Amino acid sequence: MLLNGRPTRTIWPEADGVAVIDQRALPHRVQIAVLRRLHDVVRAIADMTVRGAPLIGVTGAYGLALQARADASDAALAAAAHELKAARPTAVNLAWAVDRALAHVGPLAPGERATAARSFAARLADEDVAVNAQLGDHGLALLRELAGRKRRGEPLRILTHCNAGWLATVDWGTALAPVYCAQAAGLPLHVWVDETRPRNQGASLTAFELREQGVPHTLIADNAGGHLMQRGQVDAVIVGCDRVTARGDVANKIGTYLKALAAHDNGVPFYVAMPLSTLDRALHDGVAEIPIEERSAREVTHLSGRSADGAQVEVQLAPDGTPAANPAFDVTPARLVSALITERGVVPATREGVDRLLAEVP
Amino acid sequence: MLLNGRPTRTIWPEADGVAVIDQRALPHRVQIAVLRRLHDVVRAIADMTVRGAPLIGVTGAYGLALQARADASDAALAAAAHELKAARPTAVNLAWAVDRALAHVGPLAPGERATAARSFAARLADEDVAVNAQLGDHGLALLRELAGRKRRGEPLRILTHCNAGWLATVDWGTALAPVYCAQAAGLPLHVWVDETRPRNQGASLTAFELREQGVPHTLIADNAGGHLMQRGQVDAVIVGCDRVTARGDVANKIGTYLKALAAHDNGVPFYVAMPLSTLDRALHDGVAEIPIEERSAREVTHLSGRSADGAQVEVQLAPDGTPAANPAFDVTPARLVSALITERGVVPATREGVDRLLAEVP
Repeated sequence: MLLNGRPTRTIWPEADGVAVIDQRALPHRVQIAVLRRLHDVVRAIADMTVRGAPLIGVTGAYGLALQARADASDAALAAAAHELKAARPTAVNLAWAVDRALAHVGPLAPGERATAARSFAARLADEDVAVNAQLGDHGLALLRELAGRKRRGEPLRILTHCNAGWLATVDWGTALAPVYCAQAAGLPLHVWVDETRPRNQGASLTAFELREQGVPHTLIADNAGGHLMQRGQVDAVIVGCDRVTARGDVANKIGTYLKALAAHDNGVPFYVAMPLSTLDRALHDGVAEIPIEERSAREVTHLSGRSADGAQVEVQLAPDGTPAANPAFDVTPARLVSALITERGVVPATREGVDRLLAEVP
Repeated sequence: MLLNGRPTRTIWPEADGVAVIDQRALPHRVQIAVLRRLHDVVRAIADMTVRGAPLIGVTGAYGLALQARADASDAALAAAAHELKAARPTAVNLAWAVDRALAHVGPLAPGERATAARSFAARLADEDVAVNAQLGDHGLALLRELAGRKRRGEPLRILTHCNAGWLATVDWGTALAPVYCAQAAGLPLHVWVDETRPRNQGASLTAFELREQGVPHTLIADNAGGHLMQRGQVDAVIVGCDRVTARGDVANKIGTYLKALAAHDNGVPFYVAMPLSTLDRALHDGVAEIPIEERSAREVTHLSGRSADGAQVEVQLAPDGTPAANPAFDVTPARLVSALITERGVVPATREGVDRLLAEVP
């Protein structure tokens, strides 16, 4: 997608490592970080320099490649894979990508592994772009259908939570891919952007990338979505996901479940954009089985932004010593999901729907 | 309730005006503001130096008294009442208190009005304290019942949204009055505090006053409540309200509706603490009829807190020029409310329940 008007991916190889956009500096500064060693990659994933389920998957694959350059022994690569997968526990794409990379280079002689791992990571990145473009096309068909029910020229109003856009992937995004496809197709639309506390990925990333692409949007507090749906101001909700179970339960950014409840209560379609890499066939009951990452209390009690003099400043919101809990994801039961939008088409969030996708998986 | 260990109300008369705790400076500084003229009161209500439906009612009555001291003519008082009521549109207590004060002094000779209006405001303040204490007792009975279903010694876990505590009233609070009564009665409990974006009244006010009273609590992002309920970590939700219709629909801080949906979905009781002054018998369908205040976009795009060097600093979260919408309240339909806790007892949130309260109103 566009960054300062130029088509840009969120991750690309550099001679001595892999370059990423440092998402912690957005929206106020565009800063590129070059990750040179396994350790840099693990830290970048854990501290959310890069985030978004698809993007951390590709970044993890590059991490394995960087380790292979330093020490390509079986033991070193196994340890690296373990460390990478532990950096964030909820999104399944990370484990999926690292395991695929490991399986790809494992049979090779150690001397060939570094180059092979690097090409494999690059291939995963290209795959992600292709998958998201397909997902966007399938989502566009849904949006066209919704638009057909509106008065001619009235924008379709989409609500999204967190950032499942370009910045969460290598390119296009998942939840926002249909939006960008709709924009390209000339379908008028407007996006309600949940700010997404506690890390404000909506306010800092989604608002930023929509602005860069010129898509009309309005930022709202996470609390406001239900009210807007009650007032008939939302035509559809589209979110991304971090893990989807075999029966269609969806783990996504904390607060997603509340929006799904409000959509259900108001007859607003609630779509989950899901690349197949996000499917975890081993799990069924998402609430009971998906591990939910608990992040630092400080993300709730403190917050950082740009002060009037342009500096990035962290401020404390809560009284000194206030204890805080910070579960980073929640699970939306399949019964609240209108459909899953995937690169292979749109299916119901049911065991049968998921099976239909699985039947086609090689 | 306690402030630095000393029993303190949120508003009290001073020789030349009325003193209030400046709630914009909390939790980092305790600062008293003295309001000396009508204009000070209108501004204090509009800019949320004081907030909370019951407290702005009493503050409004003091505002009318300050005007009566300056000019007690019919025209001046009518204009003052109009200006006060327009300062915040959603909470009905403000109009209720100002209208009562006006009706009280209207029949008097202009020379008697200033003193009478001042005593009337003081009486309203005392009434608020008594009402909340009664409401707390009735709520305590509910909490005892819930506690009876738990293992002995396990704390009852209450979730609350925004601040409907001591600081939202003259004393005790509404939603938190049952909590303080339970604390006094030795019932072990723990409060989940929603931070309540965009103005963070939970993080800055509820966390502050619970700490001052020594009630165990944990701050969470507004997004987290549904997840906690899914995991069985919430025994009851108690919120305040700004206006309740004749059939039991409840306007309260934006985001309340989402918590009510989650409580309903998880079988968690959802209580609304409602002094009768919050009832608007003229309205029925809350979603269609209650006016919802739209506040400044800047409350969403910017946020203020204490920086590392102790200064209060405003920081910008969103990219430059990001449009934002900021509805300050939403409406929870009566069907999602388990019961209304009032100073006259606990009633179902139905037309019949409300009628039962009305039948007893003089």
